[in-house]
Amino acid sequence: MKLSRLGEFGLIERFRRQLPQRGGVRLGIGDDAAWVENRSGSSLVTADMLIEGVHFNLNWTSLVDLGFKSLAVNLSDIAAMGGIPAYAVVSLGLPADFEIKAVDQLYRGLLEIASLHRVSIVGGDLSSAKLLTISVALIGHPPRRPILRSGAGKEDDIYVTGTLGDSALALKLLRRGSSQLRKKSAAHLFARHHRPTPRTDFGKLLGKRNLATAMIDVSDGLLQDLSHICRASRIGAMINRDNLPLSEAYRELTGKDGDRHALAGGEDYELLFCARSSNRQKIQQSAQEARLAITRIGRCVRSQEILLRDRQGRTDTFEEAGYDHFCSIS
Amino acid sequence: MKLSRLGEFGLIERFRRQLPQRGGVRLGIGDDAAWVENRSGSSLVTADMLIEGVHFNLNWTSLVDLGFKSLAVNLSDIAAMGGIPAYAVVSLGLPADFEIKAVDQLYRGLLEIASLHRVSIVGGDLSSAKLLTISVALIGHPPRRPILRSGAGKEDDIYVTGTLGDSALALKLLRRGSSQLRKKSAAHLFARHHRPTPRTDFGKLLGKRNLATAMIDVSDGLLQDLSHICRASRIGAMINRDNLPLSEAYRELTGKDGDRHALAGGEDYELLFCARSSNRQKIQQSAQEARLAITRIGRCVRSQEILLRDRQGRTDTFEEAGYDHFCSIS
Repeated sequence: MKLSRLGEFGLIERFRRQLPQRGGVRLGIGDDAAWVENRSGSSLVTADMLIEGVHFNLNWTSLVDLGFKSLAVNLSDIAAMGGIPAYAVVSLGLPADFEIKAVDQLYRGLLEIASLHRVSIVGGDLSSAKLLTISVALIGHPPRRPILRSGAGKEDDIYVTGTLGDSALALKLLRRGSSQLRKKSAAHLFARHHRPTPRTDFGKLLGKRNLATAMIDVSDGLLQDLSHICRASRIGAMINRDNLPLSEAYRELTGKDGDRHALAGGEDYELLFCARSSNRQKIQQSAQEARLAITRIGRCVRSQEILLRDRQGRTDTFEEAGYDHFCSIS
Repeated sequence: MKLSRLGEFGLIERFRRQLPQRGGVRLGIGDDAAWVENRSGSSLVTADMLIEGVHFNLNWTSLVDLGFKSLAVNLSDIAAMGGIPAYAVVSLGLPADFEIKAVDQLYRGLLEIASLHRVSIVGGDLSSAKLLTISVALIGHPPRRPILRSGAGKEDDIYVTGTLGDSALALKLLRRGSSQLRKKSAAHLFARHHRPTPRTDFGKLLGKRNLATAMIDVSDGLLQDLSHICRASRIGAMINRDNLPLSEAYRELTGKDGDRHALAGGEDYELLFCARSSNRQKIQQSAQEARLAITRIGRCVRSQEILLRDRQGRTDTFEEAGYDHFCSIS
């Protein structure tokens, strides 16, 4: 059935019925605004928009995955503040000839990740659009002191969660229609690209225990996002290039690119954070509790530049090299 | 200068510098999420998305007005809950060949209305897009009891603020390239279409004084939005057709359409609310305090249908006739 038959209000009602009831929502979808609780007297707020042809390509991205990813990228931002995600509003721009079935798939991915991270979808907007557009705003509960980008000290350790570069390498293979697409290892990369895993539990622990001095999520590429921390904290960084966490699949399929995607790719949605070296044990314990692998990839330095050092002791300075929506969509 | 030269981060910084400092914002633009205060322990949340070619046409809408309107439509939703608007996140999808000057115009309208209603823009997202897309989520402070759609009683009065139909008639004239476009009265209609006036102060008073039993903002047309109140409150309504508040300009230019746009047009962004008849005096006082004209247009009735009565005593039942994004973009 086409959207045009069900109508906007029919579609809202259809979605509303699928939503689980969760605490904290005094009034959800169906009025002019949602009414939600905010335990702490303050909130974290973030927003991201995904647009067909810019952020995703429906030739190789399923609608379920797209729904999943549209909330994932926001969850990653709340995690990077050490917060707990709570309420989302979702605005959809849908092509008028879209099948209802297709919208249901989008919702399915959204609801799946909302459930995984205990987030309530409390409202939003529906309209027609030429290109599929998904805009999500997410509200979260902050820890007593949210983890900013600006608190890193001059001799702090630098950590990253999970592995880097998988998503960017996946996108490259997809764009090239690479012959390696059917390899088993490629499937791992695609999963990393289509279904990012925001580090909600670990971010929350770091926030609650006040263990990180600065944190950001890696969405524009490690070096680009590290440069944000460095600028905000007025420090530099020395990264041990050989310590970068690369997945087996990445190592197998990266070819001549080496660690390029791990350094400057995008859409990893891992957490990059700094911490006092005296907290190493507590940080490892927290990672274990969250069942998450983390890697110490370097340390902060006084001089305001980012240095990359390899096993042979060679050191390179690096210009910012990441993903900027207007400058370089490569 | 083109956006592609300034880049995403340059553009964010450019915008950030223009933002006024306002209370309640512990952390604004520039980190993974904003951190805002919520005095009451709960919040109102709403979101709307405007897409080029669907919600606006740049042939006759200026970018300043568009920025203004993108926040106005959300302010209207918070007003309709009796709340106080506080924090907005703004996601923009911008064509890559957009001039920076053009983005500045968009910001100017946004900042103008944000300032008028004392709202802080605390974050958002920037990306490229084929069609200009503006997605705004707005957080507000609720009154002790937000005014829902569902509280109208069987003999309540029905009121509407301002005048109805101006915006829809303006859009019709613009679409037809009407010869009446240059009339002075048309300018009034265009202003109503391009610069909606969300009823923040009056909505806040109704919420604070708990004077309305049900409220909604008129965005899809009076009858459509009234039907939402009727359904949620399980009542019907009798509307005095001759009491509809029509502007001078509307009366002059409506021609054969009569009150059609006032009944079923869209984008009025006025408040439609129900109230006990014992509160008539307090409601008129509140309207005077907010310097706003309001009109009692009818009353609620037991039978669950919407009736229109005219001076001659003729009564029509009306099917829902409004604006549905997927059904009827007329």
